[in-house]
Amino acid sequence: MRIALGVSYHGGAYDGWQSQPSGRTVQDHLEKALAALLAVPEVHTLCAGRTDAGVHGLNQVVHFDSPVARPENAWVRGTNSFLPPDIAVQWAREVPDRFHARASARSRRYAYVLLESPVRPSIDQGQVGWVFRPLDIEAMQQAARTLLGEHDFTSFRASQCQAHTPVKEMLRIDIARRGAYWRFEFEATAFLHHMIRNIMGCLIYIGSGNRPAAWMAEVLAARDRDAAAPTFSPDGLYFLGPVYDEAFGLPVRTPAFDWLP
Amino acid sequence: MRIALGVSYHGGAYDGWQSQPSGRTVQDHLEKALAALLAVPEVHTLCAGRTDAGVHGLNQVVHFDSPVARPENAWVRGTNSFLPPDIAVQWAREVPDRFHARASARSRRYAYVLLESPVRPSIDQGQVGWVFRPLDIEAMQQAARTLLGEHDFTSFRASQCQAHTPVKEMLRIDIARRGAYWRFEFEATAFLHHMIRNIMGCLIYIGSGNRPAAWMAEVLAARDRDAAAPTFSPDGLYFLGPVYDEAFGLPVRTPAFDWLP
Repeated sequence: MRIALGVSYHGGAYDGWQSQPSGRTVQDHLEKALAALLAVPEVHTLCAGRTDAGVHGLNQVVHFDSPVARPENAWVRGTNSFLPPDIAVQWAREVPDRFHARASARSRRYAYVLLESPVRPSIDQGQVGWVFRPLDIEAMQQAARTLLGEHDFTSFRASQCQAHTPVKEMLRIDIARRGAYWRFEFEATAFLHHMIRNIMGCLIYIGSGNRPAAWMAEVLAARDRDAAAPTFSPDGLYFLGPVYDEAFGLPVRTPAFDWLP
Repeated sequence: MRIALGVSYHGGAYDGWQSQPSGRTVQDHLEKALAALLAVPEVHTLCAGRTDAGVHGLNQVVHFDSPVARPENAWVRGTNSFLPPDIAVQWAREVPDRFHARASARSRRYAYVLLESPVRPSIDQGQVGWVFRPLDIEAMQQAARTLLGEHDFTSFRASQCQAHTPVKEMLRIDIARRGAYWRFEFEATAFLHHMIRNIMGCLIYIGSGNRPAAWMAEVLAARDRDAAAPTFSPDGLYFLGPVYDEAFGLPVRTPAFDWLP
């Protein structure tokens, strides 16, 4: 039977999501934990969205096929007992065989958390991006609106990106502030490799007055990676998770969401 | 001249605040950074409140006597360039010689952040305490009121505590919730060693229904460490900092405060 899991993790100690020969990835730890729980040599999982080294996950979703049935609660507690303390399965559901963690996702959500302070991060080191100059929210919101809808996002695409097409639909960009922390929330059908970190670089150029808001449209139209700002730090990037058809009945939030400012 | 610094740090990687032969304490790193900045063999700092291993600081205050004058901004940036990424000086002020980081403090403030979730921490590992059972806020608030005012807090005192007297005045205990996270805020003239972690253990016993709210008064009256609950985890404990006479003009908040739920 097919099982879906929601997983939260702090990306700081790992070489990203996707399995590597090093074995130091979140997928490697999760698959080892599932194999230990099931007492089988290996388990293969497939995720909704691969995250880079240093990027965090709040509701990453994976699916795998299990030879045995377990109560949902047993999947959660049993797997967590084999996982490192900064990775935890938040929920488990039995899903129909047609469910596919990547292909069934209608959209994905990410948040970027940014500290605006004259002093660099400390308590929150590795968990936030940092700007020391005050940001102009209206300029950033105006620039963000340029990105809504279906576009060729080549200008924000890493050279090693493996997506079939650079055309994606940006559904929502929300920008909010709580005290010294900015929170940028993105929802799109899918994201190219480094797309949010590249958009963040441009939004920060605009927010800090290095470029006018209208520059975002120029960058987008250029379809050229060299037109955009440098890729911003992974530290403040959180994969909030995929959105599926409600019929699958999968949670879209975990308690970990409330950790973010 | 005497200089006061406000310091924020993530306590996870350190053997607490106070200097140790290991050299792996926050004080050791701060003093090494100051010595490097001043190009002198050593600098001695004195802090407002020593924190244990794993406990975090948002506005720890220290003072030291400097042979040379620097612009306030130079103390901040210069020291930070020699500090590890999870420790940062937030502000610097020249203060009169009568200022003493510990003796001048009229009160101290701490926060305890607690995740209430069926699943253990992950993204926030090392930064929060954890309870899996729902907590009753009214029972905890009633118990907390018992502790307000001047009391002999022996029941909440670690055996290795070096305070001259167990009598302290609790000025304020606030309990609030944001989503899955509880935030307990304490202000007292001073705190005994492990006092908040011991009080947290008791509040959680009461909040989860293990003991009635009235039990807190019994524990307090017993003046016996064995009467209280076990010492709770250091992970969710944050030293918010000392409060001085306003005449000193020292900041009581740093941007790091906004990181907490």
